[in-house]
Amino acid sequence: MTTKNSKKIELFGLLNFPLVRPGDDIASLILDLCKKNNLEIKDQDILVITQKIISKSENRYRILSLVKPGFRAYYYSLISGKDPRFVQLVLNESNRVLRAKKNTLIVEHKNGFICANAGIDHSNTDPQSDNNEETYLLLPENPDLSAEIIRQRISSDLRKQIGVLIIDSHGRAWRNGTIGMTIGISGIPGLVDLRGNEDLFGFKLKVTMVAASDELAAGASLLMGQSKEGIPVVIARGFPYKLREGKMSELIRPKKEDLFR
Amino acid sequence: MTTKNSKKIELFGLLNFPLVRPGDDIASLILDLCKKNNLEIKDQDILVITQKIISKSENRYRILSLVKPGFRAYYYSLISGKDPRFVQLVLNESNRVLRAKKNTLIVEHKNGFICANAGIDHSNTDPQSDNNEETYLLLPENPDLSAEIIRQRISSDLRKQIGVLIIDSHGRAWRNGTIGMTIGISGIPGLVDLRGNEDLFGFKLKVTMVAASDELAAGASLLMGQSKEGIPVVIARGFPYKLREGKMSELIRPKKEDLFR
Repeated sequence: MTTKNSKKIELFGLLNFPLVRPGDDIASLILDLCKKNNLEIKDQDILVITQKIISKSENRYRILSLVKPGFRAYYYSLISGKDPRFVQLVLNESNRVLRAKKNTLIVEHKNGFICANAGIDHSNTDPQSDNNEETYLLLPENPDLSAEIIRQRISSDLRKQIGVLIIDSHGRAWRNGTIGMTIGISGIPGLVDLRGNEDLFGFKLKVTMVAASDELAAGASLLMGQSKEGIPVVIARGFPYKLREGKMSELIRPKKEDLFR
Repeated sequence: MTTKNSKKIELFGLLNFPLVRPGDDIASLILDLCKKNNLEIKDQDILVITQKIISKSENRYRILSLVKPGFRAYYYSLISGKDPRFVQLVLNESNRVLRAKKNTLIVEHKNGFICANAGIDHSNTDPQSDNNEETYLLLPENPDLSAEIIRQRISSDLRKQIGVLIIDSHGRAWRNGTIGMTIGISGIPGLVDLRGNEDLFGFKLKVTMVAASDELAAGASLLMGQSKEGIPVVIARGFPYKLREGKMSELIRPKKEDLFR
């Protein structure tokens, strides 16, 4: 297919990404793997990276047996049936609990977005203790900053303008299944404001704000998989909006506009 | 880039799609445009189609001046500030109203999903009356069936297995901006169940259900744009899950599991 008759987005999932250890430099790992496999990062490309490898490189592991649960952790543990130490980890990472019931804790993460269990993860965590069951992995502390560091490094190394998006799989209030969503941004817009643009018939669009980075996060997440196939980095080519400085908080609906809490 | 070192998804937006009129056969329009532009639909491709052209072809236009609002329409009109006739259209298309406030009506659509204004649209609607302002466009009546008809037609014409996804742009409860979401499915899974698969370290995944069609809907929506550039059909190549019969309702969270209404 030529680009003359079609507009195109391409998503390339990097195969054979090495296991990431605390202290690893993600930017170097990406550059090395691209070089080794003869994959080129082009100007205007966006690197979409799963939070998991960022969290590992930033040593966001927590050993469950070292956590001392407080009163609120016991309270939410009783409701949710989850281990009070795990609940304490969730509370530590959250501004508030939105909903709690059997098997479910929905919170506002410290970074502002709503998600289950503060995004704390057990699967695919590289065991740090003798007892695998007890190692958990928190989200990066400041995902926008994590993205920024990777972008500056790769951008200056390749002398190209690129964007970096850090994503996680989130559930949704009224839909089954998870989809990839933005948790950190550098160099691309979170939200694109199309208000004032005219539609095909000349009407002014009134309310069209597109969550462009979330659309890309979801699309790239399709390639990443959730289990053995693990592809933690996707190169996205053909993002149709102008690159600019951006931040995660663009995507967070102000609490006063929130109808559901 | 070769596929040896990367796994790839490609999204091709079909340029120069003709304006769609009531009675038009969307499958024929797609086949014609592909032929004219030398674009090939391959085996395992998925056609992602915006609801708008389906609604137009199915003549889902409503003229506002012909709508007689009832008591509930006046009630929600007072709360939302929206025209009572428009509110009546929304109520006609909905099972229930979830939230209402100034400028906002969130409903459960008859098809089961939650959205604003029952997905009823004014922009890009091809005027059917002398007074453009008064024409609105409802969602397709049965988007799964609309998708199925297009799939059967194209599939048998090309003798290839394909999937068809009908999407719309939805807002989210806690996030700014809209993203593309599934409203109709034929021949692809809505939800992919990865429970029981092992992760990289041999743990069994416990809760991983991926809303694969919503991830694709969001990614394809990036290309479609919202205004003049209007690209109503995207060919998606490289969908990483096995094609099968699917339906929109897979994606709808049962009301008893809903924590937010």
